[in-house]
Amino acid sequence: MSTDELADHVAQLSLIDHHVHGVARGPLDRAAFEQLITESDRPMMSTFDSQLGVAIRRHCAPLLGLEPLVSADAYLEARSALDESELSRIFLTATGVSDYLVDTGYSGDLVTSVDELAQLSGSRTHEVVRLEAELEYVAEHESDVSAVPDAFLKRLESRTKGAVGLKSIVAYRHGFGFDPSEPSRAEVLTALDRWYSNRDRLSDPVLLRWLLWTGARRGLPLQLHVGFGDSDLQLDKTNPTLLTEWLRRIEPLGTQVVLLHCYPYHREAGYLAHVFPHVSFDLGLTTMYVGARAATVLAEGLELAPFGKVLYSSDAFGPAELHYLGATLWRRAITAVLGGFVAEGEWSPADAGRVAGLIGRENAVRLYGIGG
Amino acid sequence: MSTDELADHVAQLSLIDHHVHGVARGPLDRAAFEQLITESDRPMMSTFDSQLGVAIRRHCAPLLGLEPLVSADAYLEARSALDESELSRIFLTATGVSDYLVDTGYSGDLVTSVDELAQLSGSRTHEVVRLEAELEYVAEHESDVSAVPDAFLKRLESRTKGAVGLKSIVAYRHGFGFDPSEPSRAEVLTALDRWYSNRDRLSDPVLLRWLLWTGARRGLPLQLHVGFGDSDLQLDKTNPTLLTEWLRRIEPLGTQVVLLHCYPYHREAGYLAHVFPHVSFDLGLTTMYVGARAATVLAEGLELAPFGKVLYSSDAFGPAELHYLGATLWRRAITAVLGGFVAEGEWSPADAGRVAGLIGRENAVRLYGIGG
Amino acid sequence: MSTDELADHVAQLSLIDHHVHGVARGPLDRAAFEQLITESDRPMMSTFDSQLGVAIRRHCAPLLGLEPLVSADAYLEARSALDESELSRIFLTATGVSDYLVDTGYSGDLVTSVDELAQLSGSRTHEVVRLEAELEYVAEHESDVSAVPDAFLKRLESRTKGAVGLKSIVAYRHGFGFDPSEPSRAEVLTALDRWYSNRDRLSDPVLLRWLLWTGARRGLPLQLHVGFGDSDLQLDKTNPTLLTEWLRRIEPLGTQVVLLHCYPYHREAGYLAHVFPHVSFDLGLTTMYVGARAATVLAEGLELAPFGKVLYSSDAFGPAELHYLGATLWRRAITAVLGGFVAEGEWSPADAGRVAGLIGRENAVRLYGIGG
Repeated sequence: MSTDELADHVAQLSLIDHHVHGVARGPLDRAAFEQLITESDRPMMSTFDSQLGVAIRRHCAPLLGLEPLVSADAYLEARSALDESELSRIFLTATGVSDYLVDTGYSGDLVTSVDELAQLSGSRTHEVVRLEAELEYVAEHESDVSAVPDAFLKRLESRTKGAVGLKSIVAYRHGFGFDPSEPSRAEVLTALDRWYSNRDRLSDPVLLRWLLWTGARRGLPLQLHVGFGDSDLQLDKTNPTLLTEWLRRIEPLGTQVVLLHCYPYHREAGYLAHVFPHVSFDLGLTTMYVGARAATVLAEGLELAPFGKVLYSSDAFGPAELHYLGATLWRRAITAVLGGFVAEGEWSPADAGRVAGLIGRENAVRLYGIGG
Repeated sequence: MSTDELADHVAQLSLIDHHVHGVARGPLDRAAFEQLITESDRPMMSTFDSQLGVAIRRHCAPLLGLEPLVSADAYLEARSALDESELSRIFLTATGVSDYLVDTGYSGDLVTSVDELAQLSGSRTHEVVRLEAELEYVAEHESDVSAVPDAFLKRLESRTKGAVGLKSIVAYRHGFGFDPSEPSRAEVLTALDRWYSNRDRLSDPVLLRWLLWTGARRGLPLQLHVGFGDSDLQLDKTNPTLLTEWLRRIEPLGTQVVLLHCYPYHREAGYLAHVFPHVSFDLGLTTMYVGARAATVLAEGLELAPFGKVLYSSDAFGPAELHYLGATLWRRAITAVLGGFVAEGEWSPADAGRVAGLIGRENAVRLYGIGG
Repeated sequence: MSTDELADHVAQLSLIDHHVHGVARGPLDRAAFEQLITESDRPMMSTFDSQLGVAIRRHCAPLLGLEPLVSADAYLEARSALDESELSRIFLTATGVSDYLVDTGYSGDLVTSVDELAQLSGSRTHEVVRLEAELEYVAEHESDVSAVPDAFLKRLESRTKGAVGLKSIVAYRHGFGFDPSEPSRAEVLTALDRWYSNRDRLSDPVLLRWLLWTGARRGLPLQLHVGFGDSDLQLDKTNPTLLTEWLRRIEPLGTQVVLLHCYPYHREAGYLAHVFPHVSFDLGLTTMYVGARAATVLAEGLELAPFGKVLYSSDAFGPAELHYLGATLWRRAITAVLGGFVAEGEWSPADAGRVAGLIGRENAVRLYGIGG
């Protein structure tokens, strides 16, 4: 298998995007579009002046009939000539993704549902249920604090019936510096009481780790946001090595933990995947946001990590360009990285092809029991 | 624009070195020179045995009429044949820097003043005022503790009349793990009392964060030393993500914060610049010290960072070789990095040329309101 | 010196492997072998699915008469046809290592002794004595707590008579977040009392830092495990910058500290080596485990580090493939990195050759006073 043959093989891989969100429901004007291609929640200079912005001009423009690297203005003009569902269909049908695992816990009203994404893309979709959102839902509907623990379990059971995974955003709400032990029922009730008294955002560390333990006991793969995200987190508190003792304690439960995104802690994630059999990770979101640097970052994630413990995701949300770009940049990056190992004589072409398939698809098939 | 054309374009860019110090006043013997090409404050084996040492032999030797990569002995011999101001003129007039922003708060007696640097270089110079040095000055001249807060404000007002920025070295004096809130006048007075009682080095976290808040209220861009420096700091305490909550709190003031150097936390700096509209950063000092590795490190800084938020500086202090080397290595590095993106087909040549101009000059023009 | 000549020069360098363990005593079946090519202490999918696994197939297969990159099965079949001491001889005599510095403090019964390693390899061997193991030995033989401090000093004196260095695994037992001051005799006795009362694993921070101080007072180079290792440590607690204040305090003792492995904190290690004259480091274990990525990681370690402060080690333990692979991957990596600097015109070929010799051999000769 030559480099070209590897590129062909990777281009034809049917990917599983194991962590993604819906595409935008309504039309996106320039301001809305620019706000969705940054993780910042603040107004900024043009967000096209970034690796992601250049990558959109480079890789998405041709799908709208434009030359690669046209100006942002020309790109947005072409984009505005199509309606959002037509745009979604164009990009989603070009991703080469057979299965999307959709996190429905974030701004679900702004983006398509799990079923709508399936219709637009022609791919299979599966749900990933966000723990914090479910507790918030229960709290809105259950006024009796003492009934919340059972109500939450019941809610989780019903919500996860057809789901393939769980997700936690404890990284945003508290960071990973929490007590690794499982809280007692009494601790949980006290914390719920406190929370019910003011009903501010769910950020109580007792409740958050109760969710983590409850999620880990559920048995489905548990996805954790790690590292890079918006300004609402403090990056150093999301270093996944802070999870070490908690990972040791939940190991006997047999639940798989999947660290998402991980930048700039992807080497740390690789270490955890190396030493713990129940830890996997991806470089979703990252691969897309770093654009022309995707291969370098991806390669750093392939140092200590066993090749059976790395996954593909886009973490795309909103414009379908992101769903497409995640897949496209990952394909370019993995080809460059593994093709580089082959070119240096360090790997065989067969090794490269097989590992690309593990990361792009087969590890997710095994982990989530889907896709076949 | 071909790679060669990009290199030409970058070679001709008129840079703004937005954080620098003066050049050495007196002659430098071998020991003094070697001590100034390391951040260590300890005696060492030859400091030429380092990336910076090799870079001096590689890039500075030709300006003294020597072959690139002559021995350190030959280099020092040629150097010793010229007086320091002649050396300064040789290197300073070759930097292609139109404007120097000069931090005058460190060992100002050993190096040229803001005006002298202008004369030697033929470039414009502007002052950056160091907050800690100004409070130390006030403390030397004001014996009444209760008068210090007003005296400091008055001093700051007078010192910053012609200045373009402020600088803090809280990274050295305490690290970034300080209480992010603004201290009350009572807290400040108590802390001043404590400090006046022993007059040791200014390292009280209350006073340091009072300086930061006062600096942020002044409105001028506020430069913060981040990461790599001499043995006087503890590196992990200078991780800029520790500033997150403080950055959130000063955001309403509208002051721009500029993170300096940042190694090995330049990816973290890129994240902060990505999510906060009032955060920029550079890889000054770093680009110079890592020598042949400058392109790699610079590229890591260009992953998440919006291109309007990255600046050029040398942080040179002492031998004018450093002022020259900062600019020269940055030009080589940015050409290699952006030219590489173009060669891979990921960026257009025009993108590369424009982003080089933003980082080398235009972002500083906008941020500091200088240079035009 | 062309790139080929540099490769030849590096290939012929007589290395000093300044931190290594013995080779396996008994035969290794597939399960045992796979468990020894991972740092995980948990059962896993095939550990051949990793950079180290591919590197074994790539670089070790030819020494067993196989094609590079044969399958793991074919490799293991060829391996099983030879007895372990024959395998050891094959790989050890191909390393080009003149001197092994052997850490005897870990699972010494499973691997060859210092003398046996010399016999199998035909190289010189020297002992590195592990501080924690010696205190555990004393505790097994001395029931009177008050006699332990003197007994430990006597034991250390006798054990280090022919030794060339000391080693500490405080990274595993507590992490580097310990009080940097030397504990008093009273503190040590209290801590010993506490430890003697339950005799669990030696992880008391008072005792661990007493060992560090005692080791530093002994004067021999003191090796510290840093960063990546098995699941028994918490990675972020092994960031070597946490040692800063302790390094400052022991500096007057004149003892050299050598940071081992360091991944992913090798840039931090380079910073410490830059600012502290008594700090050196290596990328042992790392270079081997990251396989095809070795050059990239090694290059990151050569940014701030003075070239007189970087060493070579394998940290191999068990299968002699690892002793061979450490040397082989280091040679490939250093050739690629330094040859790259030469190819870019940033270094002279002579610089590259000399620095390879410093790192591979001469720095260890000077530091440990061996090998000549």
